[in-house]
Amino acid sequence: MMPLEVLDKARSELLDWGGSGMSVMEVSHRGKAFVACAAQTEASLRDVMGVPDNYKVLFLQGGAYGEFAALPMNLSAPGQKIDFLKTGQWSAKAVTEAKKYADARVIADEKESNYSTVPAAGSYTVDADAAYLHYAPNETIGGVEFDYVPDAGDVPVVADMSSTILSRPVDVSKFGVIFGGAQKNMGPAGLAVVIVRDDLLGKARPETPSVWDFAQMAANDSMLNTPPTFGIYLLGLVLDWVKENGGLEGMGARNKAKKDALYSFIDASPFYSNPVALNARSWMNVPFLLAKPELDKQFVTEANEAGLTNLAGHRSVGGMRASIYNAMPLEGVQALIDFMKEFERRNG
Amino acid sequence: MMPLEVLDKARSELLDWGGSGMSVMEVSHRGKAFVACAAQTEASLRDVMGVPDNYKVLFLQGGAYGEFAALPMNLSAPGQKIDFLKTGQWSAKAVTEAKKYADARVIADEKESNYSTVPAAGSYTVDADAAYLHYAPNETIGGVEFDYVPDAGDVPVVADMSSTILSRPVDVSKFGVIFGGAQKNMGPAGLAVVIVRDDLLGKARPETPSVWDFAQMAANDSMLNTPPTFGIYLLGLVLDWVKENGGLEGMGARNKAKKDALYSFIDASPFYSNPVALNARSWMNVPFLLAKPELDKQFVTEANEAGLTNLAGHRSVGGMRASIYNAMPLEGVQALIDFMKEFERRNG
Repeated sequence: MMPLEVLDKARSELLDWGGSGMSVMEVSHRGKAFVACAAQTEASLRDVMGVPDNYKVLFLQGGAYGEFAALPMNLSAPGQKIDFLKTGQWSAKAVTEAKKYADARVIADEKESNYSTVPAAGSYTVDADAAYLHYAPNETIGGVEFDYVPDAGDVPVVADMSSTILSRPVDVSKFGVIFGGAQKNMGPAGLAVVIVRDDLLGKARPETPSVWDFAQMAANDSMLNTPPTFGIYLLGLVLDWVKENGGLEGMGARNKAKKDALYSFIDASPFYSNPVALNARSWMNVPFLLAKPELDKQFVTEANEAGLTNLAGHRSVGGMRASIYNAMPLEGVQALIDFMKEFERRNG
Repeated sequence: MMPLEVLDKARSELLDWGGSGMSVMEVSHRGKAFVACAAQTEASLRDVMGVPDNYKVLFLQGGAYGEFAALPMNLSAPGQKIDFLKTGQWSAKAVTEAKKYADARVIADEKESNYSTVPAAGSYTVDADAAYLHYAPNETIGGVEFDYVPDAGDVPVVADMSSTILSRPVDVSKFGVIFGGAQKNMGPAGLAVVIVRDDLLGKARPETPSVWDFAQMAANDSMLNTPPTFGIYLLGLVLDWVKENGGLEGMGARNKAKKDALYSFIDASPFYSNPVALNARSWMNVPFLLAKPELDKQFVTEANEAGLTNLAGHRSVGGMRASIYNAMPLEGVQALIDFMKEFERRNG
């Protein structure tokens, strides 16, 4: 979901961007206009997130899944340890991919709770020789979110923020790398954003593909090859919208109100339930179960008819899942709650 | 440049795609609607290009430059020979990248002509043990295009068609792999298309990133991870436009008329010149020099004022370059010729 204001703006200039008479998709990525657009998007991201000067911002391709390979190639030596916190499917995929390149070790695994918890701070030990600690602050499928940033001592912390970036304030200085696919809170699919601390650059293995080599891409302002121009442009528009809506403080307040409303309703209902530990509940993805799972299909169908889409849980877990990313207004969450109430009244 | 009809259509449904009430950028890539869209785009590409059934069509990320790494990882064993025809900057970059993974050998190098020629058929020998023969049918910077498809015997031919795909009919069965970034003739930057013969799948090295593993991506209909949805959608619209305009036969006729007009004018003028061998002149990129190079800047400025943009030659070679991809109408080329005539009259 994208903010309506962003889509409106994109539509209004789709055939004539900035008076150029061309679409932003048509201008040369090396031309003055697009170079300025990309620089402005980067400046906005730095401004909104408070990215310190000793971090580079990269606009890459291949999604977060691509980064699962690019990160070990950029940051670890062959056979070196990389420590992982496994809290669901995205961190699990990252482990599997990293094993191709390094000694990927799971130092905390929430399987006992069926991935409905996050490991407590202090309950795991990061190896001092590890290249980095990787974790997913939010697991979209399980709806499980860390309520703290892991402390790994001198070992860099690498965070897959695909589904939480821009959702509330974050202290970037606590991380070695923040990365994510754009398609949740930042823009369209096809753009990956990487925020990497300077001292981690230049360690890429010789066989790292150039388009994923952080140092090479940093040296070329992410334009070693043609970047995903439309995605960078749209991210700029999204960041303008975030600024106009109170920045990350504003996003945080808005998102807290949304998730509080939905969880409160679910907890008070005998018909709906959320399986996630209280301290680990996601602000962005709210899975819920019906007391009568035989009504799942009916729920999805009727919700669709009411204009509430994408509510079926991930095919791997079933049930329902409401994704309430930045662009979802509080009114949208309220409409969902109203529908759930009515569905319960008729079927509970 | 994209066809105006395509941009118009994209604009008209940017906020409400197919009656969904959502942008195509917002719908789930695993939802029925988008899965059908991607399948339709693939079917259209197969139809338009005449892709035989024993080829897979993949929609990937990372551009052609990403493929320069992905191809050796997918198709060659470590240390295996890969043969290259070097005719300009894109094939040169492919060689440099492949050397990270294999024994990349240049078996024909047009440096003696300053890359204004293509090697004659029969003037080079492809090693029978090579994993594949790589070449760039069109070099965008030098404006040099092959007028034949190299015959490599049983060795698969791999073609970087970034700048010629969809520009005229092609016999796909002559190739092991056809690949290209979308941003010239297919759609927006950020989408890479790979057409790969079945028997070349399943040879990927263990350390191939999953999102670039041809067999894995083929098995997952290019949706192992979130694909560049907007790019796939736009490619579908572009293919509709190609079909409405006579398919590749129509594109070929149109593009031949465009390039014939421009080269004829340049050849007849004492003021302009094109440095490329007659048999190697590109249909898509026409570089030209002014008899008075001190007027280059003035030419670009006045052309811009006349609405003729992107005419400066690549920063590495200077001079001028007219890129006349599919979306450029004959009238656009005629307008350029008229401007060039008038500029010559005033300054020649």
